[in-house]
Amino acid sequence: MRILLLTTGGTIASVETTEGLVPSLDNSILERIVKINFTDYDITIKSLFQLDSSNIQPEEWQTIAKAIAQEYPNYDGIVLTHGTDTLAYTASALSFMLRNIPIPVVLTGSQLPLMDPLTDGIDNLRFAFKMASSKRAGVFIAFNRKIILGTRAVKTKTSTFDAFESVNYPVIASVTTKGFEIRDEYIPKNQGKFELLDGISDQVFLIKLTPGFQPNTLRHLAQLQYKGVIIEAFGAGGLHFVRRNLIAELKEMVQQGIIVVVSSQCLFEKSDFSIYQVGRKTLEAGVIEARDMTTEATVTKLMWALAQTTDPEEVAKKFKTVYFGEMTM
Amino acid sequence: MRILLLTTGGTIASVETTEGLVPSLDNSILERIVKINFTDYDITIKSLFQLDSSNIQPEEWQTIAKAIAQEYPNYDGIVLTHGTDTLAYTASALSFMLRNIPIPVVLTGSQLPLMDPLTDGIDNLRFAFKMASSKRAGVFIAFNRKIILGTRAVKTKTSTFDAFESVNYPVIASVTTKGFEIRDEYIPKNQGKFELLDGISDQVFLIKLTPGFQPNTLRHLAQLQYKGVIIEAFGAGGLHFVRRNLIAELKEMVQQGIIVVVSSQCLFEKSDFSIYQVGRKTLEAGVIEARDMTTEATVTKLMWALAQTTDPEEVAKKFKTVYFGEMTM
Repeated sequence: MRILLLTTGGTIASVETTEGLVPSLDNSILERIVKINFTDYDITIKSLFQLDSSNIQPEEWQTIAKAIAQEYPNYDGIVLTHGTDTLAYTASALSFMLRNIPIPVVLTGSQLPLMDPLTDGIDNLRFAFKMASSKRAGVFIAFNRKIILGTRAVKTKTSTFDAFESVNYPVIASVTTKGFEIRDEYIPKNQGKFELLDGISDQVFLIKLTPGFQPNTLRHLAQLQYKGVIIEAFGAGGLHFVRRNLIAELKEMVQQGIIVVVSSQCLFEKSDFSIYQVGRKTLEAGVIEARDMTTEATVTKLMWALAQTTDPEEVAKKFKTVYFGEMTM
Repeated sequence: MRILLLTTGGTIASVETTEGLVPSLDNSILERIVKINFTDYDITIKSLFQLDSSNIQPEEWQTIAKAIAQEYPNYDGIVLTHGTDTLAYTASALSFMLRNIPIPVVLTGSQLPLMDPLTDGIDNLRFAFKMASSKRAGVFIAFNRKIILGTRAVKTKTSTFDAFESVNYPVIASVTTKGFEIRDEYIPKNQGKFELLDGISDQVFLIKLTPGFQPNTLRHLAQLQYKGVIIEAFGAGGLHFVRRNLIAELKEMVQQGIIVVVSSQCLFEKSDFSIYQVGRKTLEAGVIEARDMTTEATVTKLMWALAQTTDPEEVAKKFKTVYFGEMTM
């Protein structure tokens, strides 16, 4: 099995310095570790960049997507090491950018550096390589003995090893003493030929709603030429409209051609505007529901959709389409 | 036991209409249900308002806090029914506003209306009354057989009965077939006489950071005269500074006298700037860590602290003080 290991920095590649942990592990050391531990695979290592993942932004997603689009025909699978902080954002973004990728692209990282005697990095790489050689197609995350669909992961814990959760979707595979069992029924099928769709807009703004939030703030944001706004609302999609009329302001934004998406700030389950009067008022204002998508998938999908077309109706249509299991219809 | 039941609307008091569920249950019906089901207590019912909790904002927190401050000497405990969507925000806000309240104030609600044959409202009221008659002091949430500290609850699920989670803190009491066991060691002790500190500012803005977020947005928000900004950063507190230098912009805001707090967008565990180079740069910029506080506690504490004093240093000092178990030091 020919596996390409792409590195981007992160804790897994971090080294202790006087300023704190810095992602600066030498590739030759990584090469030695990988060659000693993973003799079952024919592994090629390439370094894309060395960044703390807090600094991985849309431009880096494009660098990664382009590299994968160029390299994938030569490999059976790709493993991408990445800091954990924005790993779920990158996995979601790549799921949309690498349309119908025919091989597994598996993101992984670690909570302790590879050079730490207690590291979880070796184990995470172990299962990432296993998934990368599985002949399944799509973007996945391997972490703490779980394989999570790329569009369904959320980092829910800052410091324990079990940092990621598969949100509103079953885990794709688990490692147990019985082996590595892949639940194929949960891996979405490719719908055509591979396409690199690496256009991505950074004109998206996310607000986590808090009681008392002043709606006129949105007007000022609109003037900054944001094309898309996501509101993480209360519960199943609640927004205030008494005294501070947020719904009227959203309606105004929709009329100006801004795409307004409302999601839930609850981690689990879905936004549903049909139940309460407050929610129905929101739908009438022309906003789109994020349903059961993670924030990471919601944000990256909107950023991606906005770069695929300039027509707001087309953007909305793309946003409502399910591409890689990110939303339950 | 004399219990005051204050009602504010919410699903528990909702009735099906052609526009969806609306909080409009008649108090005489509620009175009948309560009198039939809870004969162990001497219950007085008062309605404060009837709102979907998405519409409960700082002004309503003040109404509730004032009512409790006025009524508490006549009762052994208070139960407050409330919609679930912003219940955790209200519980946190009241924890700061009702300083050293000497009796239990227990918030509850339900996922299905009291009039629904499958309602969870009766059971939630059952345990709320039990806690309200426990002679413990402070603000608590009773939901799905758990008692959660008022400053530690987060609504993590939009639709199942077990909607609330006690975040980074043990549950105060659970109901099992063995009874109702209160873990007193986790209830913070009062530190003096009761004070109504109901000043609260709505000049607080919460940003959930996303990759590519444009720092100059903050400058525009500062012009809107926000006095406090909270950034839900990546992982343990990561912010980007390559290409889009968010840390420089935060430093600028701090110098203008705006209180900048950085928390984690991970639900569990704490922000910690000391580990990574990125985090240390943030601390140097003068921002404050939210540590292991929930977003609900972080937001309401900052809103509250900003209304107690105009001196930014004093605000920061109050923000860093632990008032009711909201933060682990």
